[in-house]
Amino acid sequence: MLTELRGLNEECGVFGVWNHPRAAQITYYALHSLQHRGQEGAGIVVTDGETLRIRKGQGLVTDVFSAECMEKLQGSHAIGHVRYSIGGVNGFENVQPLLFRSQNGDLAIAHNGSLTNAYDLRVVLEEEGSIFQTAADAEILAHLAKRRGTGDSFADRMMTALRQLEGSYAFVILTEDALYVALDPYGLKPLALGSLGEGYVVASETCAFDLIGAKYLRDVKPGEFITIDARGVRGQIFSEPRRQALCSMEYIYFSRPDSNLWGMNVHTARKKLGKALAREYPIDADVVTGVPDSSLSAAIGYAEVTGIPYELGLIKSRYIGRTFIEPSQSLREQGVKLKLSAVRGVVEGKRVVMVDDSCVRGTTSRRITSLLREAGATEVHVLIASPTIQHPCYYGMDTLSTDELVAAHHDVEEMRVLIGADSLGFLSVEKMAEVFDCGLCLACFTGEYPTGEVEASVRCLQASGS
Amino acid sequence: MLTELRGLNEECGVFGVWNHPRAAQITYYALHSLQHRGQEGAGIVVTDGETLRIRKGQGLVTDVFSAECMEKLQGSHAIGHVRYSIGGVNGFENVQPLLFRSQNGDLAIAHNGSLTNAYDLRVVLEEEGSIFQTAADAEILAHLAKRRGTGDSFADRMMTALRQLEGSYAFVILTEDALYVALDPYGLKPLALGSLGEGYVVASETCAFDLIGAKYLRDVKPGEFITIDARGVRGQIFSEPRRQALCSMEYIYFSRPDSNLWGMNVHTARKKLGKALAREYPIDADVVTGVPDSSLSAAIGYAEVTGIPYELGLIKSRYIGRTFIEPSQSLREQGVKLKLSAVRGVVEGKRVVMVDDSCVRGTTSRRITSLLREAGATEVHVLIASPTIQHPCYYGMDTLSTDELVAAHHDVEEMRVLIGADSLGFLSVEKMAEVFDCGLCLACFTGEYPTGEVEASVRCLQASGS
Amino acid sequence: MLTELRGLNEECGVFGVWNHPRAAQITYYALHSLQHRGQEGAGIVVTDGETLRIRKGQGLVTDVFSAECMEKLQGSHAIGHVRYSIGGVNGFENVQPLLFRSQNGDLAIAHNGSLTNAYDLRVVLEEEGSIFQTAADAEILAHLAKRRGTGDSFADRMMTALRQLEGSYAFVILTEDALYVALDPYGLKPLALGSLGEGYVVASETCAFDLIGAKYLRDVKPGEFITIDARGVRGQIFSEPRRQALCSMEYIYFSRPDSNLWGMNVHTARKKLGKALAREYPIDADVVTGVPDSSLSAAIGYAEVTGIPYELGLIKSRYIGRTFIEPSQSLREQGVKLKLSAVRGVVEGKRVVMVDDSCVRGTTSRRITSLLREAGATEVHVLIASPTIQHPCYYGMDTLSTDELVAAHHDVEEMRVLIGADSLGFLSVEKMAEVFDCGLCLACFTGEYPTGEVEASVRCLQASGS
Amino acid sequence: MLTELRGLNEECGVFGVWNHPRAAQITYYALHSLQHRGQEGAGIVVTDGETLRIRKGQGLVTDVFSAECMEKLQGSHAIGHVRYSIGGVNGFENVQPLLFRSQNGDLAIAHNGSLTNAYDLRVVLEEEGSIFQTAADAEILAHLAKRRGTGDSFADRMMTALRQLEGSYAFVILTEDALYVALDPYGLKPLALGSLGEGYVVASETCAFDLIGAKYLRDVKPGEFITIDARGVRGQIFSEPRRQALCSMEYIYFSRPDSNLWGMNVHTARKKLGKALAREYPIDADVVTGVPDSSLSAAIGYAEVTGIPYELGLIKSRYIGRTFIEPSQSLREQGVKLKLSAVRGVVEGKRVVMVDDSCVRGTTSRRITSLLREAGATEVHVLIASPTIQHPCYYGMDTLSTDELVAAHHDVEEMRVLIGADSLGFLSVEKMAEVFDCGLCLACFTGEYPTGEVEASVRCLQASGS
Repeated sequence: MLTELRGLNEECGVFGVWNHPRAAQITYYALHSLQHRGQEGAGIVVTDGETLRIRKGQGLVTDVFSAECMEKLQGSHAIGHVRYSIGGVNGFENVQPLLFRSQNGDLAIAHNGSLTNAYDLRVVLEEEGSIFQTAADAEILAHLAKRRGTGDSFADRMMTALRQLEGSYAFVILTEDALYVALDPYGLKPLALGSLGEGYVVASETCAFDLIGAKYLRDVKPGEFITIDARGVRGQIFSEPRRQALCSMEYIYFSRPDSNLWGMNVHTARKKLGKALAREYPIDADVVTGVPDSSLSAAIGYAEVTGIPYELGLIKSRYIGRTFIEPSQSLREQGVKLKLSAVRGVVEGKRVVMVDDSCVRGTTSRRITSLLREAGATEVHVLIASPTIQHPCYYGMDTLSTDELVAAHHDVEEMRVLIGADSLGFLSVEKMAEVFDCGLCLACFTGEYPTGEVEASVRCLQASGS
Repeated sequence: MLTELRGLNEECGVFGVWNHPRAAQITYYALHSLQHRGQEGAGIVVTDGETLRIRKGQGLVTDVFSAECMEKLQGSHAIGHVRYSIGGVNGFENVQPLLFRSQNGDLAIAHNGSLTNAYDLRVVLEEEGSIFQTAADAEILAHLAKRRGTGDSFADRMMTALRQLEGSYAFVILTEDALYVALDPYGLKPLALGSLGEGYVVASETCAFDLIGAKYLRDVKPGEFITIDARGVRGQIFSEPRRQALCSMEYIYFSRPDSNLWGMNVHTARKKLGKALAREYPIDADVVTGVPDSSLSAAIGYAEVTGIPYELGLIKSRYIGRTFIEPSQSLREQGVKLKLSAVRGVVEGKRVVMVDDSCVRGTTSRRITSLLREAGATEVHVLIASPTIQHPCYYGMDTLSTDELVAAHHDVEEMRVLIGADSLGFLSVEKMAEVFDCGLCLACFTGEYPTGEVEASVRCLQASGS
Repeated sequence: MLTELRGLNEECGVFGVWNHPRAAQITYYALHSLQHRGQEGAGIVVTDGETLRIRKGQGLVTDVFSAECMEKLQGSHAIGHVRYSIGGVNGFENVQPLLFRSQNGDLAIAHNGSLTNAYDLRVVLEEEGSIFQTAADAEILAHLAKRRGTGDSFADRMMTALRQLEGSYAFVILTEDALYVALDPYGLKPLALGSLGEGYVVASETCAFDLIGAKYLRDVKPGEFITIDARGVRGQIFSEPRRQALCSMEYIYFSRPDSNLWGMNVHTARKKLGKALAREYPIDADVVTGVPDSSLSAAIGYAEVTGIPYELGLIKSRYIGRTFIEPSQSLREQGVKLKLSAVRGVVEGKRVVMVDDSCVRGTTSRRITSLLREAGATEVHVLIASPTIQHPCYYGMDTLSTDELVAAHHDVEEMRVLIGADSLGFLSVEKMAEVFDCGLCLACFTGEYPTGEVEASVRCLQASGS
Repeated sequence: MLTELRGLNEECGVFGVWNHPRAAQITYYALHSLQHRGQEGAGIVVTDGETLRIRKGQGLVTDVFSAECMEKLQGSHAIGHVRYSIGGVNGFENVQPLLFRSQNGDLAIAHNGSLTNAYDLRVVLEEEGSIFQTAADAEILAHLAKRRGTGDSFADRMMTALRQLEGSYAFVILTEDALYVALDPYGLKPLALGSLGEGYVVASETCAFDLIGAKYLRDVKPGEFITIDARGVRGQIFSEPRRQALCSMEYIYFSRPDSNLWGMNVHTARKKLGKALAREYPIDADVVTGVPDSSLSAAIGYAEVTGIPYELGLIKSRYIGRTFIEPSQSLREQGVKLKLSAVRGVVEGKRVVMVDDSCVRGTTSRRITSLLREAGATEVHVLIASPTIQHPCYYGMDTLSTDELVAAHHDVEEMRVLIGADSLGFLSVEKMAEVFDCGLCLACFTGEYPTGEVEASVRCLQASGS
């Protein structure tokens, strides 16, 4: 679906590579394949074993890194980050990885997730003398490890610090002599381990492995801390096991269709959601269409089960970019449509099933329904391949307040009227859960937060999620 | 399919608008929707009835036009052009529209097509004293109209000139007081007429109408010359009628799926090609996949007829742009894949039918077959939703010489071996022709050129096609 | 003096090089040294003896040419141009050199000057069938040579064409096998010939020779046509000799101080003007200051003769560029000063002589006088190192209409009051003429136009000057 | 003199404004006037009393700040910084101001200077749990104030922290409710206080005041801490008074000629240095010339005393920028000269006195001497308007090690031979000191460091100077 149209903002992406002669270049390509997880900023830290070099900036990977600057990022080990953020003039300071310099060696951290006790930790750390230069949660980990970490080794001090964190996190951490990886005890965020030649890689999604020619080894376990260094790869569980709770929106919307999460391909999962939807809401219609790009798989699945032809009823422009000149209000009213258009030749005179992956505010569904009707559709049936979102997320989605969630205040029939559809259906939580093998976080659908009751303080620092 | 991978380069696109208060803006959006027809250069000429103003440049529409420069393009009538070209340092001079200034009024011309007698006409015109500043065919029309045009009116002189042209052309022509449109007698190029508010529009493809909220009226007829001015719209046939011969590659590959050509939706036509392919080459396989983006419709059609599930087995990157840093040779060999990747989670252990829209050199098919096998496909069956291309095009495709056309030198079995597929099939010319309602140019498949034998001289100026 | 503040816009600059392995690079550096003659556009045409390649664009030399594009401009012979123009959306088409392609060989022309019979020539040529694509005078020469040129050789046909031109011109012309140079019969424009290694160079100013390490040979003579090719250099006089009339503003304002014109260094000439001014207007003052940069030499000369200390009383910012954010009106009123500032530490409490090179509208002098007073100067004496400008220029200065020339409507005392100076003096025409050795055009001071009465038609095409 | 040619790199510049409706815009213009003190990076922090907003980046002021981003920097109080730095991929993190966020309020710091005990302070602070994210000395002050600051008020805690610093510093510090200014006890760096409307400003140089229309009030005193807030301006001396020791290179080279330092105009001071030089080294010559731009004043002074004409014998290019294409080695050898050229028309056949402001490595003087000889000078006498630099600077100049200082290893006659001059003279320390009114740091000439013996540790962190 269109980023511009929706309330669910994308996640961040992290990547790390250990022992590859062109580590920064590998990171560049990997970040490129993770670009859908964050288009606001990107950064790479590389080390040659002597020092850490950083390059980061606001914008797309291709904007931030020039060929010239890549040449300066020499070294065999690197980490990288792509970021979704609120942007604005304050944006730069929060671009990751964060780099901390010290006389004993440098340290770089990149983070995907959101700590629910970030505010409390900051207050205490500041009282203890810490100074914060960013709003990123990664900075909290650095201060905790410096001040509260215990144990002889760097890894031990890090794990002590990690145990003080609550919420979701996938960390990649680089020093001059090791790459470290940590996942929260619920496994809320995706994180996979692979091998590349003589070295190792870690990434938020496996699509990065395919791009760089790496071999998938396994997913990082909830509560696991992995050390990768000259001696190889060693994993430790730093936290008692909890029920696995991978963010279900990763399957539904965030991840790329060519990624696998815990062994299940995302496209395949979405297609299964579409099939389940077809069984729950069979409609008598002429064509099935999906909202490009993230809803196409579900639409295909729906068509396969119902036998209704799957068609390209909606087209997304490929050339919209930041330099595009927006139409003026008068042109907009006159009907100038950008980014998404309905295909008259496909939908005119047809009863259309429009499958979307999710529904947050309802505004997108309303707009697309209207586009389809203007293009001549006689009926528009909106089917959502996930349940109604009624609760905010505290784990990293740029979550709406409850006020903005249409399903928190309206029943399905009311939403149908708002959207202007002939019918409206949501996949039930039960049917959705049957599709997946691994434990999922369903908090936004059910209100059951896997980490327990979330402190009110989380709201104060929502913007710090990354 | 990927532009970078193929031998068929895209066409140009033309657009014109008469009588809209923001004519240049409307043209900007229209060109944006025609961007797939040419990414190398773009231009707009606008008139307020007093003078003609031009802005053009190399690159995408969004690169060439800034908000600032759009403000300067005031006027109610405009034409625009997007261009595919060979690029290089000589590129700029050939970006269209061309603008000719004279004491009697200015004249701007934009052209899609390729004149087969361009070389001969240039030689004669130069002998008569003409000076050429570009390699564009549009300049030939301007000189012909100036020197050889006869009749009292501008339209008459233009039509005299047009009758001297051979080959394919869709022209949009702007003066201070009228917009003119001309299509070659065979209708080799697509060109549609629409209305927008109180005014009129003309475009290479109807997708431009949808974007700007215009209403489709009809396709421009082969051999028709249309005058649009303060008195309205008047069409004249300037050339005796011939058998209609719309370029079949417009349906197969060039046009956007949401465009209609002569009343048939392009996506629908491609899906029908896929269905015809399914009937001609039913394969026992596990999944069907298409090469994004132009082959998806055919793949869906194939899946629908055979009942084999349609899957996203290949993913095209959305973020590749001109600033992307290409991997070095060593990284390439190591497996760094960009632009297109096979989805392991979908194809691993599966027998795959890979549907592509066309096959020119065979290199793309070979590369994709290889990608699919590396991702674990046990069988790869390559099916092409069009016939074998054995003959060069003289009408505007950036045509390969016969030497490069793999089907000109190999039979299907030899091609199968080259591509490395388990089986290879091409839709037959007969089955393809059954799909369409209108007369088509099939020259690249059959060698039968609708304009008759093409002079050898055409080869000298191949680069001038636009 | 500041371009932004004045009415005298800069001239164009031309350059040519024959027989240097890196001809385009040499041209790039030469154009860079001629950048002060035109900042609106730049172009280079290069030939390897086979074809002509062009690169041009709007903006500074450093904007137009990237390292990448320079690599493509291979060849041993080149010409280049920097242009002052009115800009706007129509700007690009007039950037030079112009390139004309023909079956018999290509032709590129760059021009500095302004034809006074351009309008008439265009009308006649259009009647004969010519089509014009630019407003540049160079295009007229191309059409004339094509249609009206007579004689067996290219040089002969060019000279026939040149004889039909009236006004000022310095042309450099490139074909695959020769470089040609032509200067108008009055020598209104500067043009110098030099040698570089085994080859030859020609430039509007000798500062280009110093930069590229070329050796000055001589100035091109009025009415001379020079052919440079594999056989060497051959000059011919194509027009009967007239009284030499080099534009006096070249010495006064346009040319770089390190250039020599007809053997006299420009800085030295300006210093002499300042000395003459000192003899004509000795003032009892504390400090002498000049308006940076073009008036510094005259100020130094004035100080040397009078014995009054020369000081840096005015400073010009070095970092103002196109991306500079202009202060808002309120900030401007509050005193935010950019580009030029008076040095309080130098002028406070002092009687100041402010020397400027010329005075067109008077607005600059008024503004600077005000700046000096605000910075504490007790008296401000404005001395202009050239006579009053009372007549428009038809030979290439972006001339003001008589209405705008302050000296056309006011006597010196009135101007003094307008400027707000304690005294105001202009160097007399007689004293100025004594400074120079060569014949000068004094038309803007005296109204005596060397080419005789200028046709009214010239005004119609003023914008075409280059 | 040319930055590119010399060993003395420029200083940083700081600015602050309190109580102006467009504080960020005022800071933008002020930084622009301080641009000569640092071209590698720039930053502005602004506050509206609620929060601090930051924008910074690498490059010139005009590169870092767009009109769009300036709009976002709303507020009445601001500080800014321009930075010279070593650049490279690590550069960004050190761009100032630094911004520290805390629950109790935010804090921004900008610094000009270099702490000689930076290394020791960092080691201790890290042991105490501090984490450093930059190499900037400003970060040390923030940590010291957080951890070691004592007293009830912010100002008291800051002053406690400042007393622990050694070396040179001019700090501007911004919080939501006050602007603070601090100067080291020796006054090594320049810093001036002014008023602007109802508010106050502080700047490294007074030229910033002239640009923005502010009124100079006084220089900040050595060891002074100034608080500017809603209650007005209050200065306190936080450190016992020492002998004033303003960096003498500020007068000689760094500062703009239109700035005043401790009441003396910089141009005037330089002219006096030139006059003193004339008395110490009268030469029998034909012309005097200075190296643009910083040596022109001294050359004028030299000419005034000796009566030898002052001429523009050397010209600096105005259009060289970062996009300029450097000539290849072969072109360089052939004589392509950029940036600086000798004016043949002025120096040919002449005995030339070339005045430069300082001599570090000697390479620049050698190169310019060579340029002048190539342009025909018969004699070249090199006179330096400052003493020989024999000792490194620890206070903020990007100091050379003693190895690179030509005067540390050669007597004047040896240097003359190296430079290739006919004679060479340096102004004596005694004569130089007579020119100035205020106490100066002469350490680089005499080796007498005002802060006493500088610890070896300073060398470890030389790069951290700002």
